[in-house]
Amino acid sequence: MVTETKTADVSFDSLLKIFTVPEGPDSTLTQIEASLSQNLNQFLREHIVAEEKPLREIEKDFSSAVIPETASFVSDHTEHLLNTVVSHSVHTSAPTFIGHMTSALPYFLMPLSKIMIALNQNLVKIETSKAFTPLERQVLGMLHRLIYRQDDAFYQRWMHSANHSLGAFCSGGTIANITALWVARNNALRAQGSFKGVEKEGLFKAMKHYGYEGLAILVSERGHYSLKKAADVLGIGQEGLVPVKTDANNRLCPKALDETIRSLKTRCIKPFAVVGVAGTTETGNVDPLVEIAHICQEHDCHFHVDAAWGGATLMSNRYRHLLSGIELADSVTIDAHKQLYLPMGAGMVLFKEPDAMKCIEHHAQYILRKGSKDLGSHTLEGSRSGMAMLLYAAMHIISRPGYELLINQSIEKAQYFASLITQQPDFELISEPELCLLTYRYVPKSIQAALARAQGEQKAHLNEMLNDLTQFIQKRQRETGRSFVSRTRLNPANYDHHHTIVFRVVLANPLTSEEILQAILLEQREIAKQVPTLLDRLETFAAQVK
Amino acid sequence: MVTETKTADVSFDSLLKIFTVPEGPDSTLTQIEASLSQNLNQFLREHIVAEEKPLREIEKDFSSAVIPETASFVSDHTEHLLNTVVSHSVHTSAPTFIGHMTSALPYFLMPLSKIMIALNQNLVKIETSKAFTPLERQVLGMLHRLIYRQDDAFYQRWMHSANHSLGAFCSGGTIANITALWVARNNALRAQGSFKGVEKEGLFKAMKHYGYEGLAILVSERGHYSLKKAADVLGIGQEGLVPVKTDANNRLCPKALDETIRSLKTRCIKPFAVVGVAGTTETGNVDPLVEIAHICQEHDCHFHVDAAWGGATLMSNRYRHLLSGIELADSVTIDAHKQLYLPMGAGMVLFKEPDAMKCIEHHAQYILRKGSKDLGSHTLEGSRSGMAMLLYAAMHIISRPGYELLINQSIEKAQYFASLITQQPDFELISEPELCLLTYRYVPKSIQAALARAQGEQKAHLNEMLNDLTQFIQKRQRETGRSFVSRTRLNPANYDHHHTIVFRVVLANPLTSEEILQAILLEQREIAKQVPTLLDRLETFAAQVK
Repeated sequence: MVTETKTADVSFDSLLKIFTVPEGPDSTLTQIEASLSQNLNQFLREHIVAEEKPLREIEKDFSSAVIPETASFVSDHTEHLLNTVVSHSVHTSAPTFIGHMTSALPYFLMPLSKIMIALNQNLVKIETSKAFTPLERQVLGMLHRLIYRQDDAFYQRWMHSANHSLGAFCSGGTIANITALWVARNNALRAQGSFKGVEKEGLFKAMKHYGYEGLAILVSERGHYSLKKAADVLGIGQEGLVPVKTDANNRLCPKALDETIRSLKTRCIKPFAVVGVAGTTETGNVDPLVEIAHICQEHDCHFHVDAAWGGATLMSNRYRHLLSGIELADSVTIDAHKQLYLPMGAGMVLFKEPDAMKCIEHHAQYILRKGSKDLGSHTLEGSRSGMAMLLYAAMHIISRPGYELLINQSIEKAQYFASLITQQPDFELISEPELCLLTYRYVPKSIQAALARAQGEQKAHLNEMLNDLTQFIQKRQRETGRSFVSRTRLNPANYDHHHTIVFRVVLANPLTSEEILQAILLEQREIAKQVPTLLDRLETFAAQVK
Repeated sequence: MVTETKTADVSFDSLLKIFTVPEGPDSTLTQIEASLSQNLNQFLREHIVAEEKPLREIEKDFSSAVIPETASFVSDHTEHLLNTVVSHSVHTSAPTFIGHMTSALPYFLMPLSKIMIALNQNLVKIETSKAFTPLERQVLGMLHRLIYRQDDAFYQRWMHSANHSLGAFCSGGTIANITALWVARNNALRAQGSFKGVEKEGLFKAMKHYGYEGLAILVSERGHYSLKKAADVLGIGQEGLVPVKTDANNRLCPKALDETIRSLKTRCIKPFAVVGVAGTTETGNVDPLVEIAHICQEHDCHFHVDAAWGGATLMSNRYRHLLSGIELADSVTIDAHKQLYLPMGAGMVLFKEPDAMKCIEHHAQYILRKGSKDLGSHTLEGSRSGMAMLLYAAMHIISRPGYELLINQSIEKAQYFASLITQQPDFELISEPELCLLTYRYVPKSIQAALARAQGEQKAHLNEMLNDLTQFIQKRQRETGRSFVSRTRLNPANYDHHHTIVFRVVLANPLTSEEILQAILLEQREIAKQVPTLLDRLETFAAQVK
């Protein structure tokens, strides 16, 4: 623990210095920054304490609600940050951290981020962003073309058009999904006759005008939780987010979708949007987008694709077919901070039609005047940073074929890991990788046999015990700090839809090697042996299963 | 224009390098970063082209929608960025850039930003943020205490409580305002009897259950445009954002508020929230918060204060009284990227009651499990960066008294500028500074006399011509590139509420000197002389005014 006894001078002159005099080359902050710039992985390995400290302990360092009355020296405070914050942060870029969607970042993005922050542009309006505005419009155009493959004339006409917008940059997939459904809702309840549109008159009057009893957004049972949030925020209500049955591979069943839509309609509920998932968060599967698109066309629904995570697959000529049908979507969410290898905070929503966002357009007197090209007139957020520059740079430096290599190796690494798991006598692959995400669990061999024999309550009970085991292994592995896989709860068809806790891995980090994957399985097997009582109970119960 | 002929190798090995080998000390990118780190202002002065290039011209550099098929070298691309993006960006931190709310940034934030980005934490959950989670909770606690001044026991009890939240960090004031009004809406239409609450059943059923014909959010005519967006998104409808009359100082009239609420109620419209503005975007005035709070209490309305810009004034013991009544608010928006001198992307919403956000709580299986301390269970956004670390560092290094000095000098500089303007025979102060924002315009002396005499249409016509003049001066000054003031359109009481275009300045940059302010007025006077025809027309018309 650092006890800060020295306090810095607080005078206006000393304050002016922090705005005008940079940290000297020998300052602690400069040195820390230099060491991180020279070798990020080594820096993080040295400074992040591997073994987990309980959260309650960490909280002690962050317990005062008083804003300091005395100023700290930059060097002292930097030391303090190193000891209390960096040391107990998470090494999200470690090749052994395969539990979530964060990966290693390309080195060039770090100095570029600093330049972006130093420029401190605000993309809400041209007056505070100038070249960043056409740059962001171009980046959106590039992503639009990646999805929709329109011709040059299309982009020449619309990409920089003041009253049109091919999409919006935002902080992440959640805002992107909300934006897409906001547009879908407003277009579904647009002005008609004396009704001025939901954006003006609100949902209650819109429902009465159109004579609907309810609104619905349909998505597979595996849809991301942000959609529930979207349904709440937009006034649809969480019950208006209607889950549609999935098949054994976690993909939405088109037939069930069609039936659900028809049944909603007979109850006078308007299904205004269907969300197809291109890369479910928990299992990485892709919905049958072409079939969903046709159903949406037939029923006049907005078709949104949540490709926050999987959208980057379009960069791969080898695998983009996995997302076929995405070009039929009315809107698509893609996060650049997932498989496009950008730092946190780079979400996007793209719209097929350049005038789709008209229904959420807004203006103000001092900015966003009508006819201006200010990006803020078509975004949910207001002030925003110049994050688009990082994606612009990454697309130029990595290039489309470079992204393709990254995507391909991720997918193929997941295929390798899946086959490695199935080769083990004591591991079970729960969901096959379609992209670079899979789930599995540890099941001692003897238990597997019992599980195959078991029925009804016995099977359920075995599963419950296995859930405890999986949870134990996952937590212990995380706490030990060598590697990290995440866990989630599925209801697989081949387990009678029992709640099944599974390990979940995302293999997007190009530095994750096959050796690391082998070691992770070994470690999990070792950890299992640390709970002999639980294993004994499992064995004993399994022996009773006839 | 840079023509990139060299292309980099695209192989998996070369790609691995960008994730493992940092830019060398002699690389263009390292050198650019170093020169920016050594003297940001000089770097920007040297690299940003002062004179404005027309947007149409700039767009030519950003006209292709094709993601490059060949990879660029980092050094080449950095040069390209310098020539096409940096050169035509906006020098928002220049002391002569006083048109918007961006200011110079403390130097220490730039290396810290790079560290924050390199750590790439995701604050949605503890598994990807660990110490950053208690850190963010502490930062929210500090801001909460700055506003609400609860005792230590309060913060000890609630700051780190898993099922409570003192607020949320977000990308900016717009998301903060939407979050506050989302909470207000859900609390106003909460579960009751068989009705499960608006978050579950949606707005239509909520309205029918409660028997309302409409919902209303009340705010002064000077409220920020983001509130209109919020009303739209939340399903209230823009017409549900009811503007309340302001006095001659742009402050909401409490009497008018009370009357409007009563009148809405008689029409069975539920006024569920009132927004007080603490620092209007266009004139910098603060609504009478105490009186608004009492009216809200009487009518059982959620009282939100939009202090996105002005909230930082609470750091000043000398001036915090200007915001008195803010401690009575149910929720408050503050942007750290405005007067807390952080880079873009640091908004916050604070809630008086630790359980206010319960009504927007959500969970998922793989994260945000019930009882977890994951921050994502109480935010509109999902994945988020560790921006809170920058505010944490700034509050320690600048300290509360340091922020006070910054705030005080801004306010006093605005007072100086106001008196400088009133001393000029040919300038008119339109709105007095209450904080560090004021508006004014250039009116030749002879025209002032005529304006005082003029009535009705003559006055309106004179004002129209003056609007043209103001607009011309503002545009030309921006294009010349020495300095930047913004413009907006007001309807001042002493001009019979005519549309009046004014210059708008925000004096938060500590490097803006009195000499700079003097020079800005001189430059505006000079620019006016560049349009003799317009001045002649003004003189001729003024001479006719009896």
